[in-house]
Amino acid sequence: SCFHSSSTVAQQPPLPHSRFFPPLEAAMLPDGTFRGRVAFITGGGTGLGRAMTATLSHLGAECVIASRKLEVLQQAADEISGQTGNKVHAVQLDVRDPQAVTRCVEHIESLTGLPDVIINNAAGNFVCPSENLSANAWKSITDIVLNGTAFVTLELGKRLVRSQKGAAFLAITTIYAESGSGFVVPSAAAKAGVEALYKSLAGEWGHYGLRFNIIQPGPIRTKGAFSRLDPTGQFEAGMLSRIPTGRLGQASEMANLASYLCSDYASWMSGAVIRFDGGEYVMMAGEFNELHKVTADQWKVMEKMIRSTKGS
Amino acid sequence: SCFHSSSTVAQQPPLPHSRFFPPLEAAMLPDGTFRGRVAFITGGGTGLGRAMTATLSHLGAECVIASRKLEVLQQAADEISGQTGNKVHAVQLDVRDPQAVTRCVEHIESLTGLPDVIINNAAGNFVCPSENLSANAWKSITDIVLNGTAFVTLELGKRLVRSQKGAAFLAITTIYAESGSGFVVPSAAAKAGVEALYKSLAGEWGHYGLRFNIIQPGPIRTKGAFSRLDPTGQFEAGMLSRIPTGRLGQASEMANLASYLCSDYASWMSGAVIRFDGGEYVMMAGEFNELHKVTADQWKVMEKMIRSTKGS
Amino acid sequence: SCFHSSSTVAQQPPLPHSRFFPPLEAAMLPDGTFRGRVAFITGGGTGLGRAMTATLSHLGAECVIASRKLEVLQQAADEISGQTGNKVHAVQLDVRDPQAVTRCVEHIESLTGLPDVIINNAAGNFVCPSENLSANAWKSITDIVLNGTAFVTLELGKRLVRSQKGAAFLAITTIYAESGSGFVVPSAAAKAGVEALYKSLAGEWGHYGLRFNIIQPGPIRTKGAFSRLDPTGQFEAGMLSRIPTGRLGQASEMANLASYLCSDYASWMSGAVIRFDGGEYVMMAGEFNELHKVTADQWKVMEKMIRSTKGS
Amino acid sequence: SCFHSSSTVAQQPPLPHSRFFPPLEAAMLPDGTFRGRVAFITGGGTGLGRAMTATLSHLGAECVIASRKLEVLQQAADEISGQTGNKVHAVQLDVRDPQAVTRCVEHIESLTGLPDVIINNAAGNFVCPSENLSANAWKSITDIVLNGTAFVTLELGKRLVRSQKGAAFLAITTIYAESGSGFVVPSAAAKAGVEALYKSLAGEWGHYGLRFNIIQPGPIRTKGAFSRLDPTGQFEAGMLSRIPTGRLGQASEMANLASYLCSDYASWMSGAVIRFDGGEYVMMAGEFNELHKVTADQWKVMEKMIRSTKGS
Ligand SMILES: NC(=O)c1ccc[n+]([C@@H]2O[C@H](COP(=O)([O-])OP(=O)(O)OC[C@H]3O[C@@H](n4cnc5c(N)ncnc54)[C@H](OP(=O)(O)O)[C@@H]3O)[C@@H](O)[C@H]2O)c1
Ligand SMILES: NC(=O)c1ccc[n+]([C@@H]2O[C@H](COP(=O)([O-])OP(=O)(O)OC[C@H]3O[C@@H](n4cnc5c(N)ncnc54)[C@H](OP(=O)(O)O)[C@@H]3O)[C@@H](O)[C@H]2O)c1
Ligand SMILES: NC(=O)c1ccc[n+]([C@@H]2O[C@H](COP(=O)([O-])OP(=O)(O)OC[C@H]3O[C@@H](n4cnc5c(N)ncnc54)[C@H](OP(=O)(O)O)[C@@H]3O)[C@@H](O)[C@H]2O)c1
Ligand SMILES: NC(=O)c1ccc[n+]([C@@H]2O[C@H](COP(=O)([O-])OP(=O)(O)OC[C@H]3O[C@@H](n4cnc5c(N)ncnc54)[C@H](OP(=O)(O)O)[C@@H]3O)[C@@H](O)[C@H]2O)c1
Repeated sequence: SCFHSSSTVAQQPPLPHSRFFPPLEAAMLPDGTFRGRVAFITGGGTGLGRAMTATLSHLGAECVIASRKLEVLQQAADEISGQTGNKVHAVQLDVRDPQAVTRCVEHIESLTGLPDVIINNAAGNFVCPSENLSANAWKSITDIVLNGTAFVTLELGKRLVRSQKGAAFLAITTIYAESGSGFVVPSAAAKAGVEALYKSLAGEWGHYGLRFNIIQPGPIRTKGAFSRLDPTGQFEAGMLSRIPTGRLGQASEMANLASYLCSDYASWMSGAVIRFDGGEYVMMAGEFNELHKVTADQWKVMEKMIRSTKGS
Repeated sequence: SCFHSSSTVAQQPPLPHSRFFPPLEAAMLPDGTFRGRVAFITGGGTGLGRAMTATLSHLGAECVIASRKLEVLQQAADEISGQTGNKVHAVQLDVRDPQAVTRCVEHIESLTGLPDVIINNAAGNFVCPSENLSANAWKSITDIVLNGTAFVTLELGKRLVRSQKGAAFLAITTIYAESGSGFVVPSAAAKAGVEALYKSLAGEWGHYGLRFNIIQPGPIRTKGAFSRLDPTGQFEAGMLSRIPTGRLGQASEMANLASYLCSDYASWMSGAVIRFDGGEYVMMAGEFNELHKVTADQWKVMEKMIRSTKGS
Repeated sequence: SCFHSSSTVAQQPPLPHSRFFPPLEAAMLPDGTFRGRVAFITGGGTGLGRAMTATLSHLGAECVIASRKLEVLQQAADEISGQTGNKVHAVQLDVRDPQAVTRCVEHIESLTGLPDVIINNAAGNFVCPSENLSANAWKSITDIVLNGTAFVTLELGKRLVRSQKGAAFLAITTIYAESGSGFVVPSAAAKAGVEALYKSLAGEWGHYGLRFNIIQPGPIRTKGAFSRLDPTGQFEAGMLSRIPTGRLGQASEMANLASYLCSDYASWMSGAVIRFDGGEYVMMAGEFNELHKVTADQWKVMEKMIRSTKGS
Repeated sequence: SCFHSSSTVAQQPPLPHSRFFPPLEAAMLPDGTFRGRVAFITGGGTGLGRAMTATLSHLGAECVIASRKLEVLQQAADEISGQTGNKVHAVQLDVRDPQAVTRCVEHIESLTGLPDVIINNAAGNFVCPSENLSANAWKSITDIVLNGTAFVTLELGKRLVRSQKGAAFLAITTIYAESGSGFVVPSAAAKAGVEALYKSLAGEWGHYGLRFNIIQPGPIRTKGAFSRLDPTGQFEAGMLSRIPTGRLGQASEMANLASYLCSDYASWMSGAVIRFDGGEYVMMAGEFNELHKVTADQWKVMEKMIRSTKGS
């Protein structure tokens, strides 16, 4: 075929200064941190969801992963469970369907009891000029990201409230949820909605023992994200140049942050929104960061000109 | 009946210091500012939408207002047009239905040409503990607020792009779109989505001649909002006490701000999010604003205690 | 000399699509809006401060402008007053010196009475790699911008509180106050401080009749700003390319916004932060806005690749 | 004496539902995470600074703590070092004095080499109505918090850049840095400045191997903070009622978060601002969170009223 899947696209090497920012892949929390805990991860069979599942399982959690492709889930579950020795259940679920969500949650309840950790990670996205977006394309993304997250959160939340059981919720959004971004507009809107949902419930449902936090990842190579956001691989170099740490993130790094937020080490955190992006956001947003292009010689000239300026 | 409509609920008088913040109800822009312009306002038959329509019409715009209740729209259109002498068209539209949106926009195009000003103001909302929210209740709000705004914006946007015609878009969101809020969670999520949509398109579609701005109103008495957010009227006093300007806003004031943002006086504004709330948000969010309760005598005691503190 | 002052640097023409966003230079508020009002504007002799003074004076205000260079102030005062027929007073003031601020305010009080409108607009700034910043350079900026604004605001605020007189405060900050930005770091920090100061006082001092709002301008050509931020003029083209409205702002446009915020038309606005930047901020901050570079043909290829992607 | 120090003030018990959010006090990172690393902590002799020092030392770091009171520092250094077996150096420093900062950094450089971890934690604060603030009171806070942080950061930053050595910077700000707050206005302004400083440098200095992150703590009992912010102890109950997790934070919990951010586990995090506040901010800021007061019976009445509302 004339199209390569993103995983075969030539990848950019990290920038030299990324040597200052070495990724640490090992799990950082103490062994057994999640012993006796149940974690539910949507989209847990691939990409970041899979990495978070692997880390939670490694730390002792019994995991349930759910998405549309049962085969993918089952394989991931088997592999992770094989490595960690802890149970990982695969459950088919399309989060867009509220009745399917209810059935799934009932199933989980009977399988493992209500979860202690819930990670809303399932999402869809693709790049597209907004003038080409149909109402259907709009809904194809927002139904998964916003409604799907809401259905899962409300269904589990209600049952947790009813059972007077505490839990830690985590949503995976994106750095452009706050700023917005062209060319991924349904995703931006839906992820912003997810953030408001979580901040709202952090205030409303805290007294029921529920916490809600958010991670906004920057670019982390996964097949799912990169094949739909940079299918030709041509934007990766530009991306690297505006990430102060000079490299993409790694799924295992995000899994460490996620496991922290879902653990009792973070039991006082709620309503927090954590940017995890190598510094990309502040680099892009800062109006004068363009001046990185100025050479030392040019700075000398500019400095003199500035000094010689009289008045306003 | 044992239930009063909110308009009959005893209203709180403004606080004394609101005398420093007198509402100015007259239109502030020069006559004819919108002469020759067409404005499309969803939910333009009631509340804030009606006030914005009245002001734009007064300033010379030909207006099209659209929502579900044609009768209400028609009456508003007639009254406004009667006062201003400028045409106001009433068009029935349920913004949740993308095909209806397409038909409505086609109708407008033939009626007035594509609009120069588009105000996404239609919304639904009600207070409810989130553990009582069904999937349907969730969708009843987000379908209007987020999807409805998207359908209207995308449909008009595409046609404006195709016709190489500029326009100013305005969305009406709310102060809790950013912070989130319990008890109005679907609204918070959907309005946050609207904000991301607008910020995204401000960046993406500027070169097509389109601008996108947002007003986040605080509490402004309208039947629609207050009957569903404070049906008993019992929270209004609390609200007033945390509004630094000591009073609710008035629809005519917001109409002045909206008309500014949609006029060429603001032709350089895009991607802006303007809080219009009497100061309520910063008052609520500021951790130590509770100390307003401290009396002058208590301050003296506290000051001495602080001065006498040694070390950390 | 081998250095041109910025005003002689070749200026970039606006982009073609800026025709959709024509600047309106005339004053937008009704004549006499500020009749009988006194406005105090720091840095009112040059650039944006001068434009705001001219507009307020045109609308009937008696103005007091203050900065270090009395001659510049006096000339501006005379010119503006000559055009508008309303008094403009020039007062020498270095805002870094709290005693000078007290004396200046005493002088104003005897001259015009306490002002109804206070605009903290004076500032200093220059571009510089942060590793070259001395403690003195840091203080040279933050003393003007943050301490200067605080001294003026506290001194006037106290007296207004004591006299039970209301007033509208406005601070001019910048779009990078929130995001931060390299190469203008003292300015970023100080302007962020000013924003927190204003949001804080909006909550604390509302009940005294005082309102506080903020404008964050994007790039507007003034000699003061451009000679110190882009002395060679080489960054202007890059700037334009990321401003969705395709042009720089004009001082007169900002003066219209400022006059609105300081007028009773905005008497319900307090604690608001208004970005006025042609859309630059959302364009820079949005992660995928880079895709503006993708051609229509490339989009077709990318779309096919995305469609052909199977799984995650 | 008639004034109790805050530590003797009767403390509020946590709310019952805080049982869902048990504090975990043990260090969460693997032993030796900071082995071979040097950490510099301003204000490291008391409160949160001391807790962070203890955790870093426990995890293997050689620590240098600096503030004005050498005796306090020395005692803390000895105690911590006694427990962990790792060196803790006490250095006298007033961060307001740039020359003292330079000397201190020179001293550290010779003592331990340039640090790998820098925590700007020193601060001053007290509650006070802003109309009572003198210019000196303003400067007493902002000089420590903003200028002190800048002097330390610039001095160390320059040397790290020159030596081509990477490092992780962390600043401790507060939840009201973004929102502002009355009655702690100089602190709000200065902390907002610190945040902008850090976000700016995260973009500018990343390519030198430097990362910059921020923690915004909510209320954590320390003598330094509580004796100056709630000297009488009377506001603690109100505080608890708006913290969704129903309790204050603990210094050891914050130390875990801080150690994570300064470790290589977070080597991809830069420019992040992390709220660590038990959910207090979103609870305060959310406009309808007041409705927590509504009883189940009142909700039934309200629901009926809302359902019976016709039209807008
Ligand atoms: N990687 C990045 O750079 C990056 C950056 C920012 C944010 N994120 C976010 O990180 C999360 C994970 O992304 P990723 O990069 O790991 O991509 P991914 O592998 O494509 O993950 C998306 C997951 O969502 C599941 N999913 C999609 N539609 C679903 C539906 N209707 N019902 C249930 N599950 C569904 C998918 O499984 P099925 O196909 O089996 O349903 C898949 O496992 C997403 O929320 C994404 O937005 C990623
Ligand atoms: N008033 C406040 O204090 C306040 C505060 C914050 C934000 N806001 C926002 O301000 C805007 C106006 O609110 P308001 O107070 O003026 O209340 P309102 O009178 O109830 O306005 C809502 C309008 O939306 C229309 N609408 C509802 N569903 C629709 C649908 N499916 N399709 C088309 N139109 C629909 C309604 O007309 P039909 O019933 O005829 O469809 C109505 O005209 C809303 O966006 C609201 O969220 C108001
Ligand atoms: N132009 C832009 O693109 C832009 C963008 C973002 C923000 N801004 C902001 O807009 C405001 C006005 O800037 P501008 O572009 O009009 O530049 P400007 O003409 O250089 O204005 C700065 C003014 O501040 C006064 N000033 C400086 N130091 C002072 C001191 N110690 N005491 C009293 N007054 C002092 C100056 O007058 P003296 O020299 O006589 O003291 C001058 O009038 C500033 O706050 C700036 O940060 C401008
Ligand atoms: N505790 C909370 O609830 C809370 C909430 C939000 C933010 N914070 C922040 O957390 C940090 C630590 O606060 P804390 O609660 O632990 O209070 P703390 O014990 O009073 O800590 C402040 C430290 O700063 C040092 N310091 C003050 N002025 C200094 C100067 N001029 N030069 C050098 N060091 C100086 C003090 O030591 P010397 O007196 O020896 O100089 C002291 O060790 C602060 O940044 C504070 O703003 C705390």
